[in-house]
Amino acid sequence: MDKIINRLKRIEGQVRGVQKMVEDDRYCIDILVQISAIQSALKSVGFSVTERHINHCVSDAILKGEGKESIEELMNVMKQFSK
Amino acid sequence: MDKIINRLKRIEGQVRGVQKMVEDDRYCIDILVQISAIQSALKSVGFSVTERHINHCVSDAILKGEGKESIEELMNVMKQFSK
Amino acid sequence: MDKIINRLKRIEGQVRGVQKMVEDDRYCIDILVQISAIQSALKSVGFSVTERHINHCVSDAILKGEGKESIEELMNVMKQFSK
Amino acid sequence: MDKIINRLKRIEGQVRGVQKMVEDDRYCIDILVQISAIQSALKSVGFSVTERHINHCVSDAILKGEGKESIEELMNVMKQFSK
Repeated sequence: MDKIINRLKRIEGQVRGVQKMVEDDRYCIDILVQISAIQSALKSVGFSVTERHINHCVSDAILKGEGKESIEELMNVMKQFSK
Repeated sequence: MDKIINRLKRIEGQVRGVQKMVEDDRYCIDILVQISAIQSALKSVGFSVTERHINHCVSDAILKGEGKESIEELMNVMKQFSK
Repeated sequence: MDKIINRLKRIEGQVRGVQKMVEDDRYCIDILVQISAIQSALKSVGFSVTERHINHCVSDAILKGEGKESIEELMNVMKQFSK
Repeated sequence: MDKIINRLKRIEGQVRGVQKMVEDDRYCIDILVQISAIQSALKSVGFSVTERHINHCVSDAILKGEGKESIEELMNVMKQFSK
């Protein structure tokens, strides 16, 4: 998960960068481009965590014959995530 | 724009919170719920910046008869933003 | 708006195509790829309608000094649209 | 899958409804609200198909020890789907 933490640190830096842009009264469109870059980066981290989760927890649950609840839980978070 | 900066500071804190959750090896679903909360918060900031931009820059451009370019630029960033 | 109507007719055809795929018990992944293509096409129509709306109704409202309500209404639908 | 087909038929009807709205030159905001309702309905069908796919194909693959490819394929379509 070190890679994930590094990506989150980069995202934290990007959020600070946007704060600075707002303080410096930078052009709104440039701020929006930057926010949308953070959105993409976060979504990408979300997908990595999801893939990891399916490869481990969900797969284990399925192998133990307990896949149903695990898959339902996954779908609920995917729905929230895609809003 | 002070409100916007405060919201960005809260988002920065949330991103740090997710780093900690990953380091502490917390349950993936809880991490995903947290990431999706950050997505919503960021999207909401994006909408505030967009509304402000339309109320100021785009409106001014329209009043000066130069709305077309300004609206095109806005639509391009909206498309990127909604990906 | 003829172009928009043609694009909507194509989307209608794509939705019928997905019905056929489901009836023929086609592979889920292929169905999902097709659904996501319809999503993109619909989003693109939404953006065209939005751009048209800003170029006409919103611009007129701004020129008449009544931009505020018009922009608020626009932002509300953009928020719903981006869910 | 009968439920899915019924939902797709309703979506097809909604798309035809939007065509009529455009032909009748209805207010853009009303058209956008309708398009966003179709987006939600399509997304919901997509989630049902995805859940079904995980419950069947992906689960079977995992039980046969071939989960890895199946999960990768699923993630790729989820990424496309969430664009």
